[in-house]
Amino acid sequence: MRAAIIHAPGDIRVEDRPEPQPIHPTDAVVRVSASCVCGSDLWPYRGVRPVDEPRPIGHEFVGRVTAVGDDVREVAVGDFVIAPWKNSCGACTNCRNGVLVACEHAAGWGWSDEHGHPVDGGQGEAVRVPNADGTLVSVPRFSGEGGESGVREPDEATLKSLLALSDVMGTGHHAAVCAGVGPGKSVVVVGDGAVGLSAVLAAKRLGAERIVAMSRHEDRAALAREFGATDVVPERGADGAARVRELLDGRLADCVLECVGTKESMEQALRSTRPGGALGFVGVPAGGAEIPAGVLFAKNITVSGGAASTRLYIPELLEDVLAGTIDPGRVFDTVLPLEETAEAYRAMDERRSIKVMLLP
Amino acid sequence: MRAAIIHAPGDIRVEDRPEPQPIHPTDAVVRVSASCVCGSDLWPYRGVRPVDEPRPIGHEFVGRVTAVGDDVREVAVGDFVIAPWKNSCGACTNCRNGVLVACEHAAGWGWSDEHGHPVDGGQGEAVRVPNADGTLVSVPRFSGEGGESGVREPDEATLKSLLALSDVMGTGHHAAVCAGVGPGKSVVVVGDGAVGLSAVLAAKRLGAERIVAMSRHEDRAALAREFGATDVVPERGADGAARVRELLDGRLADCVLECVGTKESMEQALRSTRPGGALGFVGVPAGGAEIPAGVLFAKNITVSGGAASTRLYIPELLEDVLAGTIDPGRVFDTVLPLEETAEAYRAMDERRSIKVMLLP
Repeated sequence: MRAAIIHAPGDIRVEDRPEPQPIHPTDAVVRVSASCVCGSDLWPYRGVRPVDEPRPIGHEFVGRVTAVGDDVREVAVGDFVIAPWKNSCGACTNCRNGVLVACEHAAGWGWSDEHGHPVDGGQGEAVRVPNADGTLVSVPRFSGEGGESGVREPDEATLKSLLALSDVMGTGHHAAVCAGVGPGKSVVVVGDGAVGLSAVLAAKRLGAERIVAMSRHEDRAALAREFGATDVVPERGADGAARVRELLDGRLADCVLECVGTKESMEQALRSTRPGGALGFVGVPAGGAEIPAGVLFAKNITVSGGAASTRLYIPELLEDVLAGTIDPGRVFDTVLPLEETAEAYRAMDERRSIKVMLLP
Repeated sequence: MRAAIIHAPGDIRVEDRPEPQPIHPTDAVVRVSASCVCGSDLWPYRGVRPVDEPRPIGHEFVGRVTAVGDDVREVAVGDFVIAPWKNSCGACTNCRNGVLVACEHAAGWGWSDEHGHPVDGGQGEAVRVPNADGTLVSVPRFSGEGGESGVREPDEATLKSLLALSDVMGTGHHAAVCAGVGPGKSVVVVGDGAVGLSAVLAAKRLGAERIVAMSRHEDRAALAREFGATDVVPERGADGAARVRELLDGRLADCVLECVGTKESMEQALRSTRPGGALGFVGVPAGGAEIPAGVLFAKNITVSGGAASTRLYIPELLEDVLAGTIDPGRVFDTVLPLEETAEAYRAMDERRSIKVMLLP
């Protein structure tokens, strides 16, 4: 099979790899229908994180199960499945506490499982999935055995939205849930990448009354408005917070969703939160970002969030995707064949694309 | 009247001051029955915060109302009242949002009101109370007109517990509420000062199953146990967290209450919190304490708390004090006359006393 390998910063190649097979009885193998590039994939690509040796890459994919180990119960051959960005067993204490991202038996896509066996990356034609029962979510509408005839395949728009549930939509939703977004709430979203845009959609879905998207890019601001943003603020820093206050009738926001991960974006988020408000943060902290305790103390701001256990959110979000009430797949503004994965990275690195879907 | 004045670090004097009178129609005057010294009073005393000019000091007191302005409705002359550590109007947006500590019209005890008129400190014989209706809480059992005859006065133990509701007990309770303490929860309390001990009592009152007090002082550990701590851990750092994990059957705590405010105590708190757990923090952040976003992100820890709007908690806690089910006043291990306020500061500065009550 073909799969993307990162050899060094800036060096992504699609190469031949062994066809994956189940190794453990809890494994499944998924034939990938679509995968994509994440903002966090750009870290090794940009050299922000070291690339010690060539390894498979990618952690978001959907596809069809082609093989299962003897102990797999929840998914079957023929199932169309969504693989969350994080593998999890579903049974350890952290999983039972709802913090699947801290699973004690997790395997890492593109890295290895707890037994030391290598695990495929998502950007490829097929993936061995450890902890299949705890990780994969089947989509009955598109599941079935007997080859492709007789089984309904998702159209491209649906495929995009299903793929978005692997990570970005669930991550944006996590920010909104952690910040307590709900009916009547005023919300500020810091970050207009795929996660920030998803957070806008999540806030709208949860009934927020006002949603202020902080964006300086016309195309992203336009999608934010389509996703439910009532206002767009291009200003940053104190000016940005002043504009938020002005828009919200002299008050700062009840809920702020931080979807970037830099010191500046966290400061922007804190500046935009009202006393007693909540900050849901899902931006992967870059460069040792710290939160000033004094600001939290004085304003009684609650900070919640972190890496999203998107597996938990897939069932409810999937229902809305299939009902057509949300279309998170619209964050994919580019579609490329898997063979052009290197170009997908370039397009995202150069900000020519919000998010690229890869089709094997 | 007599009142404590801080002249410079280490220099507290009890001096004659003008007898306070209502200035604004929303003012009351309270004759102080008891006041006390707060850990945060030690900041200017130790020179951690500058003392630019002599000023009254102290922000925790209980006493009897001797005069009210024309617009005061909720308290009357003769009422025995608890004054929370923070003055608040009760009517602005932040107050209505439950964040009284961010009141837009607050006066500062020992500083001034929003009109620029000086406000007495709590460590004195009498205090002018701006925003009387939004600030003071009456205790009907000890209220009444007609001088001291015919009015029941609280005994010393009760007086201590009522005084504890001004700040430390409500602050410990805030930490517990913010961390979601409840039945079945495991709790770690970092800090064994008056607030930490109050947090233990609050956690017990809220039904926590396990309460681990981190303390190295035998007398404080003993009081922590009496307040409901099931375990005491003297170790710090990684050893302390390992001990917590060992005590809690291999798991870190659901809820951690940070009651110190230093970088070390915050680290200890984060180390002690399980993935997906909650950290309630009420330690006043000292020296630019920062919370590492990466740790919150990886462990999905929620951080909540800050300065406690103790005014909100007084009614429910008062009920338990009067019913005799909690005795937060036990944190006062020393009682001194107001004239010996300087010695009270020394005793707390030198850690000879957990907390000192001052009687005018």
